[in-house]
Amino acid sequence: MESAKKQIVLTGDRPTGKLHLGHFVGSLQNRVKMQDEYDQFILVADVQALTDNSENPEKVRKNILETTMDNIAVGVDPDKNTFFIQSMIPEIADLTIYFLNLVTLSRLMRNPTVKDEVKQKGYENNIPAGFLCYPVSQAADILCVKASIVPVGEDQLPQIEQANEIVDKFNATYGQTFDRIKPIVPKSGARLSGTDGKSKMGKSLGNGISLSDETSIVKEKVMNMYTDPLHINKNDIGHLEGNVVFEYLDAFDADKKSLDELKENYVKGGIGDVEVKMRLFKILEETLTPIRERRKVLENNPKTVLDILARGTERARAIAKETMKEVRSKMRIDYF
Amino acid sequence: MESAKKQIVLTGDRPTGKLHLGHFVGSLQNRVKMQDEYDQFILVADVQALTDNSENPEKVRKNILETTMDNIAVGVDPDKNTFFIQSMIPEIADLTIYFLNLVTLSRLMRNPTVKDEVKQKGYENNIPAGFLCYPVSQAADILCVKASIVPVGEDQLPQIEQANEIVDKFNATYGQTFDRIKPIVPKSGARLSGTDGKSKMGKSLGNGISLSDETSIVKEKVMNMYTDPLHINKNDIGHLEGNVVFEYLDAFDADKKSLDELKENYVKGGIGDVEVKMRLFKILEETLTPIRERRKVLENNPKTVLDILARGTERARAIAKETMKEVRSKMRIDYF
Repeated sequence: MESAKKQIVLTGDRPTGKLHLGHFVGSLQNRVKMQDEYDQFILVADVQALTDNSENPEKVRKNILETTMDNIAVGVDPDKNTFFIQSMIPEIADLTIYFLNLVTLSRLMRNPTVKDEVKQKGYENNIPAGFLCYPVSQAADILCVKASIVPVGEDQLPQIEQANEIVDKFNATYGQTFDRIKPIVPKSGARLSGTDGKSKMGKSLGNGISLSDETSIVKEKVMNMYTDPLHINKNDIGHLEGNVVFEYLDAFDADKKSLDELKENYVKGGIGDVEVKMRLFKILEETLTPIRERRKVLENNPKTVLDILARGTERARAIAKETMKEVRSKMRIDYF
Repeated sequence: MESAKKQIVLTGDRPTGKLHLGHFVGSLQNRVKMQDEYDQFILVADVQALTDNSENPEKVRKNILETTMDNIAVGVDPDKNTFFIQSMIPEIADLTIYFLNLVTLSRLMRNPTVKDEVKQKGYENNIPAGFLCYPVSQAADILCVKASIVPVGEDQLPQIEQANEIVDKFNATYGQTFDRIKPIVPKSGARLSGTDGKSKMGKSLGNGISLSDETSIVKEKVMNMYTDPLHINKNDIGHLEGNVVFEYLDAFDADKKSLDELKENYVKGGIGDVEVKMRLFKILEETLTPIRERRKVLENNPKTVLDILARGTERARAIAKETMKEVRSKMRIDYF
């Protein structure tokens, strides 16, 4: 009796910094939830990180271990998931080059994520070609390991749409080879604002609470969080909208009843920011303490983490080689 | 006593059709001249051919053998040269992906060869991304085998300039890794006009004389060649400018003294086009007969040709692997 083969899921991180609470809420928790039901591949996207960090390779190298440790510390089990390093799978580059022939320049420039990033990073026409082509590379990441499911944020749906256009074009040109990719938008996938309340939490924006931050740092960051600028004295009426402390409580506080009461009193006036912040700090510490402890063990054994990456990369590469064998055969470039 | 290591030269062909007299004059003869002094690599650029032939893989596959047979038939010795197939060296794709981060979109769009081709093929904004990125891929072709010399036509000098910008940027970012590429413009490298006198000889324009054309076809093509539209009767004065038959005689007729006399008389009037064309036909046949004979032997032994390609590809790949090992080390992505 053969057990049904699990569906392959691809997800991953850019190794450009330590992961933070935004990643925890947006994707890491979801990985833990999915790891039993699916055959989940966790891509450490160092090639993609290099597209806009080409002058800073040491940063990317360092963060390969950091992001992997963050994943494992949170509970993404290396025995249930396949962690692999993008740059160690040259088949992804190979497939990307063939996919690039199936996409036009104007289509790439229409990609909203690319458009946004270009705006945000001020690239305009000086956009590195590698950055422009990255959605094609992403299609190759997914299809090289034959993943059929990709968890994404709402804002990444256009990437999957573009990848599926490549799937259709490839199949139409060379014969049925790839299945269409199904995006999943996790319910818990809401973006967490930065502690400054200005935008989403970002690795490079200095407004995040890292999963590896020490207690004193977490406390300091929570105490300096953006709340309600009109709520100066304890007895002033308070506002919840745009109030980051309450946004975080919504995400992390399991006691919804008590939280609702707190909100009510805060709005009426009579609750000080410090009280609310101390509540959040305590709750975050409950989440972060075991993560921090598991992470410390890994930090003291970097070899273990490297072994996990080597093992996963080997497995992913074997699949990618099979994929490229099929691609070459379909494209009639399997000469010898 | 160790003999001095020969410099590595990279040259090659797009396998999109049989090679013709334009290739013979423009590059093949030069390869024969260079093959003793240099360690010459002949790239069969199937990946590049696919950038604008993605829907026609069978054509590309077929022409891999055809272009290789053309080379060997002309005298490009497989024991002195390394013939290799681009798609069988995934390290080229790998290197291309990293190079793409070092080039901006606007730089790619400024490339005159790309601009021209876009115009000629009517791509405009629908240019396939792979086609746009092709100059980067070309830099990877050259640098993967550590070639330092590339014979090019005048019009391809900007490609080498772009490749050298990538060399400089890579070295500046990751440390000295690649030598700058030296373009050589062969003296014999002039472009041959098509038999219709309208533009350069082109594989897809139907205005070429293939190296493998049978005698009767060569005769027919020469007899239909564009000459001087004002030279209707034998005794009319003739014009040499734009007269394709004389252009070909300049390229192939070794008896310059007799050719000069012929020209003089043609201009004065008194020489018919048929006489000139018969002279050209005879001279072309002297060149083409031995080529055609050697080619026939190869056509009857496709396995031999495939073996030559397999052997060369193996050698090129070993070098490319060494190159990528060094690149990974310099880029700090040599994790395990």
